[in-house]
Amino acid sequence: MMIDLNADLGEGFGIWRLGDDMALLDVVTSANIACGFHAGDPLTIRRTCAAAVDRGVMIGAQVSYRDLAGFGRREMEVDPEELCSEVLYQLAAVDGIARAMGGRVSYVKPHGALYNRICRDPEQAEAVVTAVADYDQGLPVLTLPGSVVHEIAAREGLTTVVEAFADRAYTPEGALVSRRSPGAVLHDPTEVAARAVRMATARTVTAVDGSQVPVNARSICVHGDTPDAVLLAQTVRDELVKAGVTLRAFA
Amino acid sequence: MMIDLNADLGEGFGIWRLGDDMALLDVVTSANIACGFHAGDPLTIRRTCAAAVDRGVMIGAQVSYRDLAGFGRREMEVDPEELCSEVLYQLAAVDGIARAMGGRVSYVKPHGALYNRICRDPEQAEAVVTAVADYDQGLPVLTLPGSVVHEIAAREGLTTVVEAFADRAYTPEGALVSRRSPGAVLHDPTEVAARAVRMATARTVTAVDGSQVPVNARSICVHGDTPDAVLLAQTVRDELVKAGVTLRAFA
Amino acid sequence: MMIDLNADLGEGFGIWRLGDDMALLDVVTSANIACGFHAGDPLTIRRTCAAAVDRGVMIGAQVSYRDLAGFGRREMEVDPEELCSEVLYQLAAVDGIARAMGGRVSYVKPHGALYNRICRDPEQAEAVVTAVADYDQGLPVLTLPGSVVHEIAAREGLTTVVEAFADRAYTPEGALVSRRSPGAVLHDPTEVAARAVRMATARTVTAVDGSQVPVNARSICVHGDTPDAVLLAQTVRDELVKAGVTLRAFA
Amino acid sequence: MMIDLNADLGEGFGIWRLGDDMALLDVVTSANIACGFHAGDPLTIRRTCAAAVDRGVMIGAQVSYRDLAGFGRREMEVDPEELCSEVLYQLAAVDGIARAMGGRVSYVKPHGALYNRICRDPEQAEAVVTAVADYDQGLPVLTLPGSVVHEIAAREGLTTVVEAFADRAYTPEGALVSRRSPGAVLHDPTEVAARAVRMATARTVTAVDGSQVPVNARSICVHGDTPDAVLLAQTVRDELVKAGVTLRAFA
Repeated sequence: MMIDLNADLGEGFGIWRLGDDMALLDVVTSANIACGFHAGDPLTIRRTCAAAVDRGVMIGAQVSYRDLAGFGRREMEVDPEELCSEVLYQLAAVDGIARAMGGRVSYVKPHGALYNRICRDPEQAEAVVTAVADYDQGLPVLTLPGSVVHEIAAREGLTTVVEAFADRAYTPEGALVSRRSPGAVLHDPTEVAARAVRMATARTVTAVDGSQVPVNARSICVHGDTPDAVLLAQTVRDELVKAGVTLRAFA
Repeated sequence: MMIDLNADLGEGFGIWRLGDDMALLDVVTSANIACGFHAGDPLTIRRTCAAAVDRGVMIGAQVSYRDLAGFGRREMEVDPEELCSEVLYQLAAVDGIARAMGGRVSYVKPHGALYNRICRDPEQAEAVVTAVADYDQGLPVLTLPGSVVHEIAAREGLTTVVEAFADRAYTPEGALVSRRSPGAVLHDPTEVAARAVRMATARTVTAVDGSQVPVNARSICVHGDTPDAVLLAQTVRDELVKAGVTLRAFA
Repeated sequence: MMIDLNADLGEGFGIWRLGDDMALLDVVTSANIACGFHAGDPLTIRRTCAAAVDRGVMIGAQVSYRDLAGFGRREMEVDPEELCSEVLYQLAAVDGIARAMGGRVSYVKPHGALYNRICRDPEQAEAVVTAVADYDQGLPVLTLPGSVVHEIAAREGLTTVVEAFADRAYTPEGALVSRRSPGAVLHDPTEVAARAVRMATARTVTAVDGSQVPVNARSICVHGDTPDAVLLAQTVRDELVKAGVTLRAFA
Repeated sequence: MMIDLNADLGEGFGIWRLGDDMALLDVVTSANIACGFHAGDPLTIRRTCAAAVDRGVMIGAQVSYRDLAGFGRREMEVDPEELCSEVLYQLAAVDGIARAMGGRVSYVKPHGALYNRICRDPEQAEAVVTAVADYDQGLPVLTLPGSVVHEIAAREGLTTVVEAFADRAYTPEGALVSRRSPGAVLHDPTEVAARAVRMATARTVTAVDGSQVPVNARSICVHGDTPDAVLLAQTVRDELVKAGVTLRAFA
C-alpha cells in the first residue's frame, strides 16, 4: 500500500503569504508549486523549490489562468492557442528554477478554475495537454478520473495520475459534491484522516448516501490555505503511516 | 570578416504590436526575444521563437525588470535575490518555449533600464550573472565592453559577447553619447550602414570629435521599434554583405 | 435629425498605441475612454481626456474586465460584488482625471466581453448598473436595445442610450450578426456611410435578407483600431453632414 | 491636547490579506487606504471605505508607485508626468469609491518608496503635489516636516499635515534613524505608547543620544502589518486617552 500526498504550495505573491509552506513541505510528498500566473513570484518559486529539494519532496508545476486578482479561480474564455502558450511558459519557468535548485518539475497539476474547466472542456483540455506534451512527453498530469483532460492526455500519450480528495464529499457516482452544497467540504481532521486511510487501503470512499464508491487514486490532495491546514494534513499523514501505508511520490 | 546583427523582437503584448517582427527576422542573425516582463506574452514568444527557428535566426532571452507599464525602461531598486529569481524565471520560460519550437535560447541580453543599470551596478549585475550561470554556465551575455556586468560575468566564468551600435554616436573614449544629447542617435540609413561596415571591417567607429575609436564588437545592434527600422536594418545588412562581411550569429 | 458618433479611444498601454486617437477625436462626438483595466494607462487617459475637452468631445468611461493580456475580450466569471467594485473604481478614476482636465465623464460604455456578457447575464448586468448608480444616478449607459443590461438599467432608474453599428450586418430581428459569420463586418467606407445615413435619417438598416429593420439609435459606433478606421469614420461623418444630419453628443 | 492616529489599511490584494483591518479601524482615527497600485483591489477598497465610514474614521488615499510585486517599496524612475497621472488616477478611484460608500477621501498619504523619494526628490514631489492640487486644492498631504514634498506642497498652496512615528528612533536633528540601523524600530508596546504620549503632550521625542527633540506632529502613524500591530496600536491609543489626549482626525 502506497500513496502520495500533494498540496498547493508557493501561493504567496510579493509581500503576501498564503499558508505555511515550510510546515506543509514536512508533511506532503508532492508540492504543486504556483507558477506566477495565479500566485507565486519568482523568488517564492525559487525558495519553495529549494525547500522541496532539501526535503526530497517531488515538485509539480501548478499551472493556471493568468489571473492574480482572482487567484486563478475564475473561468476565462482563453483562446486555446494562447492558453497552450501560457501553460508552456509557466511550466518551463518553474522547471528551470527547480533545475537551478537541483530538482526538476516531475508532473503538472492545473490550478483552480483551469483544473475544473479542463475536466469538461475538450478545447482547453487539449491546449493544456499539448503544452505539456510539447515541453516533455514524459511529464504526468495529475487530475480526476473520467475527466475530459484525463481522456485527452491518455490519447496523446501522456501519463495521467489520479488524485482523490479526503476532505471532500463524494456522490454515489464517484464525483465531487459541488462546493456550493452543504457538507461539501469536511473539516474534522479525524474524519478526513479516516477517509484518507480508507482511500489508500480499501480503495473506496463513503459517498453522501452511505454507499462505498471505488477510488483508485495514486495521490491524495490536502489543502494548504486554511488556518488548520497543517494540522489536518499532519493528521492525515500520521493516520496513513499508522495504517501501514507508505507515503511516496508517484513518480 | 564576420559579424552578428541583433535586434529586439517579440515586444508586443496581447493585442498590441511593436515593430515588424517578421520583416526584421529576415534581416538579423540574432533575435533578442522579450520574456514577458517588459513585453512579450507567451503566444507572442512562441510565434517569434517558431519564426526564428524557421529562418535559422539565433534566439536570445531579453530579460528585464518587471515593468509592463514602463516597458522596462525605468530603473528599479529591486533586491538582488529577487532580481536573480526574476531573470531565472524569464530565461527558463523563453528557453522552454524555444525548445518546444525546435530551438533554444543561446544567449542572454538584458533589456532597457536593466541593461544600463548592470553596466555600473555590481549588485544587480551579480544578480543577473548568477541567474544565467545557475541556469546554464554555457550561455553568453551580450553586453558593452568595459561594463561592470562584463567584468562580473567574465569573473564568474560566463562568456561575454560585445556589441556595438551603428546608429549611436560615440565619445572619443568609446562610450555611447547619452540619448539626451543632440545627435546621439543617427537616422540616415546610408550613414548608419557605413558605420556598421567600418565597425565590422576596420573595427573602428568615428567618434563625435572625428577621432577613430576601436570597436571590437562581435555583434551590431539594430533597433526594431521605429517606423523606418526595417529599412535601416536592411540597409545595414546589404552594405555589410557588399563589403564582404559574413553575417553570422556569434554562437 | 441628430446623431452621436462614438468610438473607443485611449486604448494604448505604456509604450503601445492602438489606433490614431487624435485623428478620431476630430471625427467623433463621444469618446469611450479606456479606464486602465483592458487598456489605458493613467497618462494616456489624461492626454485623451485633455484632447477630448479641447475639441468639445463628450467623454465616456469604457469600463472593462481586468484583463490587459486579453484586451478585455475574454469573458470572465467575476463575482458580481467584485465586478461592481471594479467598475466603480474605473469609472471614478477616469472621471477624476477628466475633471482635472476640465471635463467629466458623461456616460458609461462597457467594453468588449463585458459589453456582450451583460447583454444576457442579469447578475453581471446588475453589478455594472449598481456601480454606475452608486457613483452617479445621472450617468447614462450606452448599450444595445432589448439587452438585459438595458432592462436592468431602466428598472434601476438609469438612463439608457441606444447605439447602432454602421459597419455590422444585422439580422431581420434587428440583432447583430455574429462576428464569426461571413459578412458580419462591412469594410467599404461608402457602404458603411450610406448605412449610417439611413440609420440617422430613416431610422432603419437593411438586414442580411434585404428587409428594412427599425433602428432607433441615438448614437452610432465607429471602430478605431483598424488601419482604415479614421478614413471610415471620416466618411461616415462627411456623409451624415451632407445628408443634413446634425452630429451632436447625446448628453 | 489633540492627536490623530493613522495607519495603512486595505493592503490586501485578491485572496491575500495583510494585517487586521477591522481591528485597526477600531483604534485609529485616520485610515490610509491602499489605492490598487501597491495593494488594494477595488472590492477591498470598497469594504475598507465602508467600514471606515461606519466607524467615523477619516479616509486618506495611500497613493503609490505601480508595483504590486514589490508592494510599492522599490524606488522607480518614473517620468514625472506619468507619476502625476498615476497619482491622480489612484486618488480619484478611491475617492469615488469612498463617496459611493457615503464618505470621501480627506487627505493624501504617499506610500513606501514614493513617500521616501518625494522627501528629497523635487521632480517626483512636484508630480505628486500637482496631482493632488489638480484633483482638489483642499486636500492636505500627510508627510514629514522639512521634507522637499512638504515645501513644494506649501508653495503650491496645499495644506500639509505633519506626522511622527512613535515606534521609530529619531536622530538628534529630528530625522528618522534609517531602518537599516540597529534599534531603528521599537517593538515594546509600553515604550512606544510612552513616546506617543510624549509626542502628543510635550511635543518632543527622546532621540538616540538621549536629547529631547521637538516634534510638532498633528498625527502619529502606527503600523498595521506586523503580527502585534493591533496590540501596539491599541496600547498607544489607550495610553494617549489615559494621558488626557483627545484622539481626533486632523481634518
